[in-house]
Parts: sequence; C-alpha cells; structure tokens
Amino acid sequence: MAFTISGAFSAMQKRLDWFGVLSLGFVTAIGGGTIRDVLIGNTPVTWMRDMTTPLIILGTGIICITFGRYVKNFKVALFLFDTVGLGLFTVIGIQKGLAIGLNPGICVALGTITGCFGGVLRDMLLNNIPDLFRKDKEIYATVCIIGGTVYCLTIKIIPEQIAESIAILLICAIRMLAVRFKWRLPAARQ
Amino acid sequence: MAFTISGAFSAMQKRLDWFGVLSLGFVTAIGGGTIRDVLIGNTPVTWMRDMTTPLIILGTGIICITFGRYVKNFKVALFLFDTVGLGLFTVIGIQKGLAIGLNPGICVALGTITGCFGGVLRDMLLNNIPDLFRKDKEIYATVCIIGGTVYCLTIKIIPEQIAESIAILLICAIRMLAVRFKWRLPAARQ
Amino acid sequence: MAFTISGAFSAMQKRLDWFGVLSLGFVTAIGGGTIRDVLIGNTPVTWMRDMTTPLIILGTGIICITFGRYVKNFKVALFLFDTVGLGLFTVIGIQKGLAIGLNPGICVALGTITGCFGGVLRDMLLNNIPDLFRKDKEIYATVCIIGGTVYCLTIKIIPEQIAESIAILLICAIRMLAVRFKWRLPAARQ
Repeated sequence: MAFTISGAFSAMQKRLDWFGVLSLGFVTAIGGGTIRDVLIGNTPVTWMRDMTTPLIILGTGIICITFGRYVKNFKVALFLFDTVGLGLFTVIGIQKGLAIGLNPGICVALGTITGCFGGVLRDMLLNNIPDLFRKDKEIYATVCIIGGTVYCLTIKIIPEQIAESIAILLICAIRMLAVRFKWRLPAARQ
Repeated sequence: MAFTISGAFSAMQKRLDWFGVLSLGFVTAIGGGTIRDVLIGNTPVTWMRDMTTPLIILGTGIICITFGRYVKNFKVALFLFDTVGLGLFTVIGIQKGLAIGLNPGICVALGTITGCFGGVLRDMLLNNIPDLFRKDKEIYATVCIIGGTVYCLTIKIIPEQIAESIAILLICAIRMLAVRFKWRLPAARQ
Repeated sequence: MAFTISGAFSAMQKRLDWFGVLSLGFVTAIGGGTIRDVLIGNTPVTWMRDMTTPLIILGTGIICITFGRYVKNFKVALFLFDTVGLGLFTVIGIQKGLAIGLNPGICVALGTITGCFGGVLRDMLLNNIPDLFRKDKEIYATVCIIGGTVYCLTIKIIPEQIAESIAILLICAIRMLAVRFKWRLPAARQ
C-alpha cells in the first residue's frame, strides 16, 4: 500500500492521467518482487497468482486519485508503512533466494532488489534518475543490505521467525535514524 | 508492422542511426509480447521461436528508413493496422493467460500489457515519459481493458472465435470513436 | 571488468552516491547477459549461480570509486579490455542460443544483446538516450552483428574453438578500425 501511494503521488506530480497514476502505483508496488521473480525464474510472477495483491493496489490507487490531498496528511503513517514494507519485502526476497539454494550474498542482493527496485522502475517510467542512486536522497538500499546481511548471518543460529523479526526491526530502526539525522552516502568523486 | 513503423518513426524523430531505428521498431513491435512471456515464464519468448516475425519487422524497418517520407502518406492505413493490431495483441495476451489458468482479471492486464507495453519500452528508450500514461495523449490502454473485459465475460457463453471477433471489433470501434472525438482520461489532480 | 568501469564512470559523471556507482557498474556488466537469460528462460540468471562474477564486479567498482582519477589513465587498456569483452560476450550469447536450438539469426541477436544491452540499461537508468542507438556515437552493435554472423557461418565448417577465436579477433579488429577512422552509421532521415 505504501509503495502504491508513493508511485501514485509521483505520477500525479507529473500530471499523468488516471490510468498512468494507477499503473505507476502498481509498478512501484509489485516492480521489485516482479524483477526478483523473473531473475530466479519464479513464473508466473507472484502477483499474478492471487487477486488479493492486485485488488489492494487498485483500491489504494483509486483512494489516492480520489482523496489525493487528504492522503498526504498521513505523512507519518505512510512513512511507517513504507518502512515496515521495506523490511518485509527484503526478508521475503532473501527467503525466496535461500529456498532455491542461492549464495547468501546473492540473496541479500535479491532482497534489496525486492525492496527497492519498484521505486527504480517508477523513476525510469517517469523519466527521472532513480532516487535510489542519488546522493541527495536518503539512504534506502544500504538499509536493506545491512538488515539483509544480519538476517542471513542470524538465521543459521536462531529460529527463522526471530531472525525475521530482528531483521525487520533493524531495517526500521536504521531507516528512521537515517531519515532523522539525514544520513547520506557520499557522492563518488570522479 | 504498424507497431514497427511507430517505433521506427519515433526513433527517426530523435535522429538515431539505422541500427537505432531498426532496434526501436523491433522493441515497439515485440516489446509487449516479450514482457508478457517473461512474466508468465513462456520462454524462449515467442518471437525467438520463428523467423517470420523478426523478418517482417526487419523488412518493415528497412522500408521505413528507405521510404520514410512516402510511408507517412498512408496515415489512415497505418492507423487502421495499428488498431487491428492492438485488438489482436490484446486478445492473444488474454488467451495465453487463460491457457495457464490465471484469473480473468489478471488476463485482462496481460492482454493490455501485450497490446500497449511495446510503446512504453519505446518511450523509455527514447527518454520520454510514456505516451500511454499521459493525459494529453489519446486513451489506449483503456480501450484494451474494455475490450479485454468483454472478451473474458463473453467467452464463457459464446464460441471462442465469435468472442474474439467481437472483442477486436469493439476495440477498433471504441478507439476510432476516441480518436475522432478526442476522448481523454482526466489528469489525476494532486 | 571493463563494462563495470564504464558503468561506474558514467554514474560518477552524474554525481551519484557510492551505492549508485556500484549498482550502475553492476548493471552495465551483467545487464546484457541477464536480459539474454531472462529471454531464453535460463534462470536463475547466470551471475546468481556463482559468486566469482559478483565479487569481481564489486571489487572493480570499489577500485573505481577509490582511485577514480587514476583508473582513467589506463584508457588504452580499458578500451582493449572492453573490446575483448564485447567479442567474448557476443560469442557466449550466440552459444547459449544455439545450445537450445534457436535459429542462427536469432542467436546473432542474442549475442548482440549480451554484448550491448548492459550499456543500454546503464543509459536508461541514467536518463540518457542509449549511446548504442545514436548516430554521433561509435558503431558497436554493428560490430557484434558482423562478428556473430561470421561465427554462425563458420561454426558449421570449422572446429568450434577456431570459429570462436576468429569471431572474437574479427570483432576486435573491426571495432578498432571503426574507432580509429570514426566510422559511423548514417542517421535515418525522416
């Protein structure tokens, strides 16, 4: 839901039509998981197998179009949703990688792709350089990589569910600190 | 063929070289079907299995480069080709989805992707915001969604071939009316 | 390595952050092979199955960030690496296509995609029209197509390893001549 809202609002800023706004919401929400599924050959991709996800996204998109200005007032709630979503997506991505026996390092990459690349697709479609790669934007992928690495390290020694919760909480905590104190990665000088 | 011509002309407007024009023609023609095939795991993707499609696209692209100005005189013919193609692509996309047992709602999305996302790839490669999502461009996806929905509803009660013809005719009719009367989806206000 | 460096430097020019530079290096290096694998259904994609490639790319990216100005002094070495890489990638792409029984014409396309589409993804992510399609840039895909065609023709009559070497040498030779004498494909006039 939070990812849909982010996509839908970016689309509205560029003054796209209704179909454009719904599409961008959709792509932002399912883009990361779709790229992951395609890369590991998990097809038909996850969102096609069950109507729940598409319907939630569609509903969220319609709410954004109808109550646009109102939804914006829930900035804090949206940020929390987005952060929990980021943690959840990262862990799910890693689990799918581990399930087919990939190297943990690759799985962390898969988790990061799941969490972050919906936004990359959104920015590509809207003709922007992806926020994910820009030095003036908040760190985002770095948070997934740290949380994901911790998950891969802890899962071998503690029960899966506890490792899951720790990773998600860690991702939320670091991201909140990063946003609060405006942590940025330095630009790479040429 | 019509999709190839659309891609090739967009590329010529940006003054790409021959290889660029042929590539853009190719991507516009097979992009939608390729994304569909990749999403449902129908690989190697369709255009790789048979040389007919690639050769037709290549031939069309070469004609565009050689007789560019002349081809433009057939505006009405091109529009008709494009419209019939849109209907056909949509129905084929839906059929591939139904064949592997996907939910009809997802199949309509697959049909729309097949019909429309070649143009999205074209616009992404040429560094434009996709026409498909813009409020100042004609409705395009909406036509596929309506035609596709009708197809999915009618196919259960009438023979497949009749349902096919109705859907394609409907897509053609709505699109012609939409272009004639300049129907637009409203922009989503922020 | 050469492809990683090309991606990393393009990212630095746009002043991306560290994560952005590493990501762009990664995408440029594995993008072409990934698109090929996804199109033919060879999943999980190649770079996920073995840590060697990702680690080499990561190391190269870190070197670029740390010693940026210094790396640039090796222009000639980089160009040679890039050219050999282009030839190698093209031949590998063709072999993967032939191995699953695709038409040689399609295999040449697959080889060209493997060699060139990492750079296309790089340019799409950085919000540029792909160099590959531009008339003011060196010919690049054309070299792959010529070398690939020769490979497909010779492989039937001479041993595979000799055909391989000839194709790679041919690609290197043509590319060097093309760069030396500034060969360009003409723009397609409209």
